[in-house]
Parts: sequence; structure tokens; C-alpha cells
Amino acid sequence: MSNNKWLVGIDIGGTTIKMAFITKSGDIEHKWEITTNVENQGENIILDIAEAIESKLTELGETKDQLLGIGIGAPGPVQMDTGLIYEAVNLGWKDYHLRDKLQAVSGLPVVVDNDANLAALGEMWKGAGDKSKDVVVVTLGTGVGGGIITNGQIIHGVNGAGGEIGHITSIPEGGASCNCGKNGCLETVASATGIVRQALEQVDNHPDSQLFRTLEVSGKLTAKDVFDAAKSDDPFALQIVDQISFHLGLALANLSNGVNPEKIVLGGGVSRAGDILLNPVKEYFRRFAFPRVSKGAEFSIATLGNDAGVIGAAWLIMEELNKK
Amino acid sequence: MSNNKWLVGIDIGGTTIKMAFITKSGDIEHKWEITTNVENQGENIILDIAEAIESKLTELGETKDQLLGIGIGAPGPVQMDTGLIYEAVNLGWKDYHLRDKLQAVSGLPVVVDNDANLAALGEMWKGAGDKSKDVVVVTLGTGVGGGIITNGQIIHGVNGAGGEIGHITSIPEGGASCNCGKNGCLETVASATGIVRQALEQVDNHPDSQLFRTLEVSGKLTAKDVFDAAKSDDPFALQIVDQISFHLGLALANLSNGVNPEKIVLGGGVSRAGDILLNPVKEYFRRFAFPRVSKGAEFSIATLGNDAGVIGAAWLIMEELNKK
Repeated sequence: MSNNKWLVGIDIGGTTIKMAFITKSGDIEHKWEITTNVENQGENIILDIAEAIESKLTELGETKDQLLGIGIGAPGPVQMDTGLIYEAVNLGWKDYHLRDKLQAVSGLPVVVDNDANLAALGEMWKGAGDKSKDVVVVTLGTGVGGGIITNGQIIHGVNGAGGEIGHITSIPEGGASCNCGKNGCLETVASATGIVRQALEQVDNHPDSQLFRTLEVSGKLTAKDVFDAAKSDDPFALQIVDQISFHLGLALANLSNGVNPEKIVLGGGVSRAGDILLNPVKEYFRRFAFPRVSKGAEFSIATLGNDAGVIGAAWLIMEELNKK
Repeated sequence: MSNNKWLVGIDIGGTTIKMAFITKSGDIEHKWEITTNVENQGENIILDIAEAIESKLTELGETKDQLLGIGIGAPGPVQMDTGLIYEAVNLGWKDYHLRDKLQAVSGLPVVVDNDANLAALGEMWKGAGDKSKDVVVVTLGTGVGGGIITNGQIIHGVNGAGGEIGHITSIPEGGASCNCGKNGCLETVASATGIVRQALEQVDNHPDSQLFRTLEVSGKLTAKDVFDAAKSDDPFALQIVDQISFHLGLALANLSNGVNPEKIVLGGGVSRAGDILLNPVKEYFRRFAFPRVSKGAEFSIATLGNDAGVIGAAWLIMEELNKK
């Protein structure tokens, strides 16, 4: 591989597609976004992506020769051997041959993975994972996603559902219903949506709390409101943060008793709460993890933000090209 | 590798060392046991093993030329790169250079892994794992052990504590104390020891139960007694089996939400209970696993019994030799 050429990293989301030209050292040279066109079962997405690459190259005065290959992430389970997306509900794709289609229109080698997995690879390569071969990344956003790396490889599992950390059952009986069809998933507790739900369910019992007043004034509550109130020592907010931390610490400890990670990285919007969340999560983790597992694991907050996916995608296509 | 030569599989336990000469197809040609000499921090174990190999060869009229290499399992966490045993409490070993020492005395290539991991590899190769690349094996014996295979490789983790399924926290608050120093581990619930403890703790509240009568007559209870009584529809025994199954099903579901296995294999003495345990475990698993994970996972009972470790050890040294 020529040293000055670029890898293309792409991260398809339900509303925007993040794209970047990235060096082989993992530095982003150019990044931009296009809108995700989900009309007609997302059939235009591939052409939009190919066109976006072409026009960016033209804009930069470069040609396709400058590109080595494309790594691309989609929000759904992936069959790695074939680059097939089993299903991406947000895009309208089902049994979609993403790799082959994008290779055909772009003329470049393509590798496909799940978006949460690519975010984990990105953090492993250039972020908080710090090049460790054993990393758990949990992304606390609207939902809870995850990616698990062992022996330096993503765990895809038998049908692409590896790393579904958000669907660990945290509340086996009487938990809130989850989009996946189960009840009591970690996502119902530790996502931004879940945090707000818990606050709203209980706030009327805490009329003296800061959160009660915030709700009265602004007419709504956000996850950030909960953490802000906890930072001001509001007892009700602290109680919610304790519940979240208990379940997150327990779920991560139990998963780690299986995979014994060196790094556990919290990402996503909720992770911006910082130490007010990280410290109690660590405390519960230490209590529930096998002592040797606890000793081996270091916690941190993700550092790449929204760039994690495109950077992980670039890493994956580089790995793929190196194999050849 | 010559086709008629043998691999040596060795499985060191606290009381006996299992040894076997195994073909490259995974068939055991000769197997035998020697006593584990744990005196003097287990310093004679290596020499005992080397001597046992020599005398068996002599007995069979063979020479060391017949042997390709040794795979060996020890009861403790292992550093794979170096074949170091961090600690094997039952043997008295600490930071023990098992690979290098055994290579020196035997003159053969050696590869080392944890005993539970080798049992998992054995089941993957020749047993219930059925050559799948994504397997979880949980061994329900006096304790609860485990081995997890993803992408065809054992998960060792950062410090050799991968696959510690027995120390998943099943009862986060008020659980029984575990040998590992924590409370409420799966091992305290689903091991033979744990099953008996639960029965004894509750039996006095169930004077009409079959288990109460068994205890009166024989002065003790075993895990087998509990399953036998459950098979005769004894309500108290069924209740205990339900508790065990709930926790085992939940722990395996949550782990599987991370690793998305194709095969989940229950082994060890407790697994001989068969369907009376397997069926409710599956039922709870299906309830608690992410739907796609549930769809991908098939349960079975281990088929290799006590041979799993030596067979897995043979597989591992064969893999190692194939790399060269």
C-alpha cells in the first residue's frame, strides 16, 4: 500500500451518513456528511455514497487512485464473510448485499461491519482502547450499543449479534419493555431514554428535588438534567444515578467475567456525564467482577466521539488489505 | 506432521493427572492417569509427567519419535504467549513456567492452557460443540467452570481470566459467599455444592418433601438426590431446580448477548441430570436472551466427559504445530 493514499471510512446512520478520508495512521484528512435517503427501502444509499466520494475527490483535485478501499458500517447485524446486512430496520434493508453492491459501484475493495463494532475498533485503534487486544466498548446514547474485541478481533458471533450489550437483561422480572421485544434490558435502564423514563416515573414522589423543579420550569427532563442535579447533590438524582450505575456495573462485570478485558470504554452522549457516572459504575464493577478480572480492567470514557465509527471502518479495510 | 504419530494430551487436576496419546483425528489411542504429587509446591509434577510418558512409550514398544508434541492443561489462569501459570492454588504453583520446564525435561514442543478452556476446545473439536467457531461451555461440577470460544479461538482475556462463567454474579445482594472472595456467584447457585447448600438451607421448611425423607434416611443430600426428587415431581425439589435454572439461564443469556454463540454446552457431573435441568435452563435462556442471539444458540449436554481436557489439549498442540 502506498503510504500517502487514503482509506475511506463510512458510518451509515438513520439520518446522516458520516464519511471520511483517513490516513493509514488513522488520522482524518477530510470528513463530511450526507443525508441518509431511506426512501424505497434505502435503495439509493449506495449510489449516494459513491457519488459523494467522487465529488469529494473532484473537489480536492484527486482521483480514485488516491483511495485504497472502503470500510463501511451499518446499523444492523452483519455476515462478515459476505458483507451481507441481515437487517437494518432504520434504513429499510433486509438481506442486503452491501459489500458487493458498493464494490460494484465504487470499483474499490469494501469491507462491512456493524456500526457499534466499528466504533469499538475505532476506540481500540486511536481512542480510549489504546491498542489493547481485549476491549469492551459500551455506547450509552438514545439506546445502548456495544462492541467487544478479544484476541484483537471483534466478536461477531454466529449470526452477527455479538456485542449486544444493551440487551443484557438487567431487571429479569418487572422491567420496562424494550424495543427488542424483551423486558428489563440494560438499554431500558442506562440509555438516555431509559434515564429520563426512570426520572419521570419517580419524580412525583420527590417534590423537593431539583429535578421536580426543572420539570416544572422547562416542562421536560433530559439525562443531562439528571446528572447535573446529581452533581449538585440532589438526593433523588443521586438515587437514579445509583440505580443506573448498579446495573451498568453489574452487567459490565458479568460480561467481563467472560471476556476479561483490559479496557472498558464508555461512550455515547450519556458518557459525557463523566466521573459522576464513571466512579459509581467502577465501584459496582469492582464489587461484582471476579477479583482477577477486576484487577485486569481499566475504565475510561471514549475519546473519539462521532468519529469512532469512520476511524474503525478505516482500520478494518486496512486490516483486510494487509491480509492480501 | 506424519499421519501416524501421536499428540500428547495432559490434564492436571488436584488429585490425578489425566494423560493420553491421541491421533491427529482426535481419537484417543491410549489413556491413563497418574497421581498428582502436590508436595513441595508441586515441584515433582513435571518430572512425574515426563517419566509417565517415557514408561508408557516403553510399555507400548514405541520411542519418543512417535510423539509430535504435548498439550497440557492446568487449573489456573495462564499467560498464553509464554506458557506461564500465574497461579494454580491446588498444585501450589505460582508464576510457574510450565511450558518451558516441560519442554526442557520432555524434549518435546509444549503448549499450555487452562483446564476449563481445554475442555471447551475438546468439546468443540470432538464433542457437543460440533466444530462450531462460537461455543460456550459451562462445566457444572463441585464448582462451576467455563470456556468461551469465539472466532474459533479461546477467550483468554488480558490476564488469563477469560471464561470465568462460574463467577458471574447471580445474586448481587445477599448471595452466599464464594471461594473467590465475592458473594452470590453463579457457582454458589449452580454447582453441585451450591445445589446441596440450597436444599439443606430450605429443607426444614418442607417436611413433606421427598428430599426431607432422603435426608432423614441417608443423613445427607446430593445434587443427584435433588434432581431425582424433581423427576418424581417433588414440589420442593422442582422449586430448587427452578431457582438453579433461572440463574443459569439468565447468566448464559447475558453472556451470550455478548458473544452470540452457536453452541452452548453444559458439562460436568450436574449436567448428567439431563432434560430435567436442560429444559428449564433453555426456557429461561430464551426469555432473557436478545431474540437474534436466542435464535442462533443451540443447547446440548457435553459428550466427552472426563476426556474433554486431554482431547482439547491435543487439539491445541496440533494447532500450534500447524502454525510453524
